[in-house]
Amino acid sequence: MRCEVVAIGTELLLGQVVDTNSSWIGEQLALIGVDSLFQVKVGDNFGRMEATIRQALDRSDAVICCGGLGPTQDDITRNVIAAIMGVEMCRDDAIAAHIRDIFEGRGRPMPDNNLSQADVPEGATTIEQMPGTAPGLVCPVGDKVIYAVPGVPHEMREMMEGTVLEDLRRRSGETSVIRSRVIRTWGYGESALAETLADQVHNLDETGHATIAFQASGIEGIKVRVTAKANDVAEAEAIITAEVDLIRDRLGDYIFGYDEETMESVVLDMLHARGLTVAASESLTGGILSNRLTTIDPDMEIFRGAVVAPAGPADGEDGAIAAATAARDAIGTDIGISVIGPAVPDDHPPGTVFAGVALPDASHAVKVALPGVLSRMRSYAVITLLDLLRKRLD
Amino acid sequence: MRCEVVAIGTELLLGQVVDTNSSWIGEQLALIGVDSLFQVKVGDNFGRMEATIRQALDRSDAVICCGGLGPTQDDITRNVIAAIMGVEMCRDDAIAAHIRDIFEGRGRPMPDNNLSQADVPEGATTIEQMPGTAPGLVCPVGDKVIYAVPGVPHEMREMMEGTVLEDLRRRSGETSVIRSRVIRTWGYGESALAETLADQVHNLDETGHATIAFQASGIEGIKVRVTAKANDVAEAEAIITAEVDLIRDRLGDYIFGYDEETMESVVLDMLHARGLTVAASESLTGGILSNRLTTIDPDMEIFRGAVVAPAGPADGEDGAIAAATAARDAIGTDIGISVIGPAVPDDHPPGTVFAGVALPDASHAVKVALPGVLSRMRSYAVITLLDLLRKRLD
Repeated sequence: MRCEVVAIGTELLLGQVVDTNSSWIGEQLALIGVDSLFQVKVGDNFGRMEATIRQALDRSDAVICCGGLGPTQDDITRNVIAAIMGVEMCRDDAIAAHIRDIFEGRGRPMPDNNLSQADVPEGATTIEQMPGTAPGLVCPVGDKVIYAVPGVPHEMREMMEGTVLEDLRRRSGETSVIRSRVIRTWGYGESALAETLADQVHNLDETGHATIAFQASGIEGIKVRVTAKANDVAEAEAIITAEVDLIRDRLGDYIFGYDEETMESVVLDMLHARGLTVAASESLTGGILSNRLTTIDPDMEIFRGAVVAPAGPADGEDGAIAAATAARDAIGTDIGISVIGPAVPDDHPPGTVFAGVALPDASHAVKVALPGVLSRMRSYAVITLLDLLRKRLD
Repeated sequence: MRCEVVAIGTELLLGQVVDTNSSWIGEQLALIGVDSLFQVKVGDNFGRMEATIRQALDRSDAVICCGGLGPTQDDITRNVIAAIMGVEMCRDDAIAAHIRDIFEGRGRPMPDNNLSQADVPEGATTIEQMPGTAPGLVCPVGDKVIYAVPGVPHEMREMMEGTVLEDLRRRSGETSVIRSRVIRTWGYGESALAETLADQVHNLDETGHATIAFQASGIEGIKVRVTAKANDVAEAEAIITAEVDLIRDRLGDYIFGYDEETMESVVLDMLHARGLTVAASESLTGGILSNRLTTIDPDMEIFRGAVVAPAGPADGEDGAIAAATAARDAIGTDIGISVIGPAVPDDHPPGTVFAGVALPDASHAVKVALPGVLSRMRSYAVITLLDLLRKRLD
């Protein structure tokens, strides 16, 4: 079963609004085993909308149109779909009454043009969920279907979750389930990772049990996604677990977490489990490290604080450890962490920075080369430091 | 002149990555007067990529392909474009040498498959800017053109700004110039702003000299964009200056900056001009404020440092001023700033926070209600505090 997504609105093409709806819909479709091979953004133009939706319907079984259901003259999705269905528009009195009720509930008079939202193509059914004044539509075209949902994200999601996904699943006759797991890695390049796992990927290509995909995610490291399709959830989970075990054997300590875990959430969880607190000295990283840690630990129960200050004269591995120790002692925690550099003028290549960790009974430092613009260097420095702490806590 | 954008990558269709590149490119195209009528996402599949790019080239003058230039087997944009051009791939030795240099600079061996990035379609020219290991391409097809840029946003932007936009402009033969200016405001709602400027917008609609557009930008405030099209730069600038003057008369102090200025860059510029230094106490904001200020002032010449610590017992306007004063005195600057709250348990509604500024000869505080999730509350608290300082420095 194939379903395309057409996101409608000139503001999307002009970059005034980022189309996050298609991405979210694509994710939901994948989870019910429906392929979405094309997703198109098109402006509020009758001819171009009609051509785009017709082409999508030609090469797929279903089309989800997102946007263009508002009350203004620009909002013509309803009319374009009617033209494709070859039918007239007709007033849905129940919807009209519901829209009137919404305005009365808000104590505001209803502008006349809002009633246009109650005009639907003949033969379409309206979607039960209607959190705003725009009804969603299910529009049969032969044995295919066009869905129309609003561009307002929460309205779209309510209709997708309440009606569209179930309707698609029923039409697809799909009985298998798809599950996936993301392995989060740090320290491997994308191509090196692909080479390391090449034979496993090759075996899966032959058996078809599951797929492995790589996704370079900048300062989030490289994600390895394992996806399996099976007859039921238990079988899919079993396939994934077996593949993840194989990958873990190969990658070992390069794996820092799974799925929604981040480097900072993993490190904070490890500290929490061990009953340890941490403080930071931030010069190069200028507050980013604190920001990340307090986002996960807003009450600062584990991350107890930081000193943000200009880079001092300290240099090298010893300097990083001294800064970490000073933060630990000043704030009174079990552990101190710091990144210093890039040291100038000095004997190191540009972009050389030092990360230091002062533990209760030991200290460690690493030297890394992080050339590039400052913002990237800072973000890489933060994850490098947290990765050092993670490995030393193991 | 019409230019379509094709965003390439199965991860985009699956919603694992949101396609922000097309939006950004759409915005840039609009600024140089190029229409972008369709933007398509397609997966890493030869046939579908070829069909999509061919169709885009049929109905437009230029196509920008974004993504699929990496070193893995999935990355086939180069090959698809060669097929459309009807040419073979050939190794670009200069690019190959450059990629080798990049790996040597990182002290890492180059995996063999990275060299595939140096294979380009015959007749294509490589884009001079090359921040990563993926070269961008300019590929002529008859009197039309396909550009290929990486999916990594900062690499894509550098190539767009360095080469693609100028090349498109030259090809378009557009002789009129479009200029725009963005007025940055804080403290006004979007509909109130639109009402305040309604007659000016109406006059412009009638004369057609220029347009005024509003863009709500969350914690960046509301942007008011004035755009003029004229025969030359001087004429366009004159039209914009006249309109901006009118808007300034209406909005006054709600305007904090223009174009690329941010609240933090404006405040740091004001402090620099006055020879003043500042220090911060961060509890609620957990490092975000330091992060923003050190991004603009990485050597910390004006922003001299911060203490990031758990929320203390201090409360109310007096508490905010006390925290600001403590930061100023501890770090030895002219000015101290702080945000505290949301105070619990207390007499204030949820989300009540206090921003305080300790100047050399005076102190000020404001109380604001910032309900919502913590991340938004923090970001709003930062801009609220900086806006308070800005107004007190005036």
